[in-house]
Amino acid sequence: MRTIEWDDKKEAVKLIDQTLLPREYKIAEFKTLEELIDAIQRLKVRGAPALGAAGAFGVVLACINEKSKNAIKKEVERLKKARPTAVNLSYGVNRALDAAMSGRTMQEMKEYALEEAKRIADEDVAVNKKIGDYGSELLEDGDVVLTHCNAGRLACVDWGTALGVIRTAIEKGKRIEVIACETRPLNQGSRITTWELLQDEIPVTLIADSMSAVVMRERKVDKVMVGADRVVKEGVINKIGTYMHAVVAKEHKIPFYVAAPLSSFDLKRSYKEVEIEERSPEELIFFAGKQIAPLEVKVYNPAFDFTPFELIEAVITEKGIISINHK
Amino acid sequence: MRTIEWDDKKEAVKLIDQTLLPREYKIAEFKTLEELIDAIQRLKVRGAPALGAAGAFGVVLACINEKSKNAIKKEVERLKKARPTAVNLSYGVNRALDAAMSGRTMQEMKEYALEEAKRIADEDVAVNKKIGDYGSELLEDGDVVLTHCNAGRLACVDWGTALGVIRTAIEKGKRIEVIACETRPLNQGSRITTWELLQDEIPVTLIADSMSAVVMRERKVDKVMVGADRVVKEGVINKIGTYMHAVVAKEHKIPFYVAAPLSSFDLKRSYKEVEIEERSPEELIFFAGKQIAPLEVKVYNPAFDFTPFELIEAVITEKGIISINHK
Repeated sequence: MRTIEWDDKKEAVKLIDQTLLPREYKIAEFKTLEELIDAIQRLKVRGAPALGAAGAFGVVLACINEKSKNAIKKEVERLKKARPTAVNLSYGVNRALDAAMSGRTMQEMKEYALEEAKRIADEDVAVNKKIGDYGSELLEDGDVVLTHCNAGRLACVDWGTALGVIRTAIEKGKRIEVIACETRPLNQGSRITTWELLQDEIPVTLIADSMSAVVMRERKVDKVMVGADRVVKEGVINKIGTYMHAVVAKEHKIPFYVAAPLSSFDLKRSYKEVEIEERSPEELIFFAGKQIAPLEVKVYNPAFDFTPFELIEAVITEKGIISINHK
Repeated sequence: MRTIEWDDKKEAVKLIDQTLLPREYKIAEFKTLEELIDAIQRLKVRGAPALGAAGAFGVVLACINEKSKNAIKKEVERLKKARPTAVNLSYGVNRALDAAMSGRTMQEMKEYALEEAKRIADEDVAVNKKIGDYGSELLEDGDVVLTHCNAGRLACVDWGTALGVIRTAIEKGKRIEVIACETRPLNQGSRITTWELLQDEIPVTLIADSMSAVVMRERKVDKVMVGADRVVKEGVINKIGTYMHAVVAKEHKIPFYVAAPLSSFDLKRSYKEVEIEERSPEELIFFAGKQIAPLEVKVYNPAFDFTPFELIEAVITEKGIISINHK
């Protein structure tokens, strides 16, 4: 199934619980907004484009469970704030909410929200395929592509942004290998990227994040390709570690690409105005329930970082490629 | 107690089992070389200077348990190869073995090896204090120093190299804070560096390795200070991730310092001739016993990397500071 879907019979959001991968493939179902917000905050569903769909389906849940337009509006405000950094969550909520508000009855509101949410999900897949088409022209037969976090089908409704580009290139007959960075502290690279690539039999090698500079110096990497949580006017906000990879890629003259749908663009804003989610110290003090640092240690745990366009070769969108001239 | 010591009564090597920190502080004892080699390979004791002492005490164990000079020589060859990258292990073994070989009886051999091993351990502490004296002049009151892995008292017999510099600076009345990188995949930073700094009430903040570029851009770091497993003619071999930190430090014009005793110097060799230990894929597939990546995924897991002198501001030794002119 897709990463996130609507179940018409059960009137529930269904999604692949990403916190259990790769050990267990389990579909979770949510009938209330409360449960969905909790799932978003626990990263059962994550990735900017997938959060867009999750936001839209969340509005449908609000329409089902609430009794008035005002109550719906109030509830979805909480949904928008479930995670602050990716712009797609608000984008999906706003689109589905606007659709809902044109309904006259509660039933109509739910129907309109659901239509719009399904449209967002379908669009996401189509958009990713177009990103794949454009982006795949940047990859050559034999390329090894380093990626960070998961910008794959599990970060989207399907296909993926950065990994979608790789999938399309492979579909076009190019041989592409991937180096996946584990992506501390929540290991989306180890847990999700490697899993989804192996499902598709795409060759992948797992490394620790701090090894990227070495594999670049050893010329084991031809290109870097990542996704984005938000594209702002001076650059890209993406999973923590992205900026580090961009700096070392520049040092080794390895092109650094970002693949992102226009729904992740927020060009009126500066990166300084975007809230970078800071997550719990426990993510670095515990691992898999086991204590790995002193309980009293101070922790700095931003979930995202900002990479300026000057370190980026191109941003791949569904409308084409933004090539950045570095003179 | 010191990180590693000899127990005269029990005729055993005693050491703080570093794999159990920070949850448990436990002293492990070893009476055979076999056990000590296993402990070294499992990183119960680690850090280049500590491995020098471990190598020397290992020769004593061989003298106690073997019946001839030839048998001792053969056994300690295995000890030297327990871990290939840090030069100190061979250094410690060779010094204690040379001392042992001047003995005429098995008893004399053991005594001479033990004297030499204790001398190595005492020297290590004295050397670190001198490194601290020289290095502390490079730190200013109020500095925040980023470090990677553990180059502290637990990497040495006592005091530490990189963290020894920080300890001495604090002893001299400077206020110094530390940012400790967790150091994947074995988290020596989270588990050991934070623990030993908190024991001494030195302020420390834990981050994931990939956050170093961000804390540097945000000017939360004034200097980087790391240890070394081997100093070769073109630069420094140290824990994987060191090179990445050095590249991003250069980008942000943050001085990058290495603190290392001369016993870690191997200037006749190029980094290309040094074996970089590649450790088990399991270190990235499992964490704290829990599976975090598909079992069949390919893994690249070098334990060390090479940083050229052009990225290093200075190397601090017990004889003084090697300042590198970058023109």
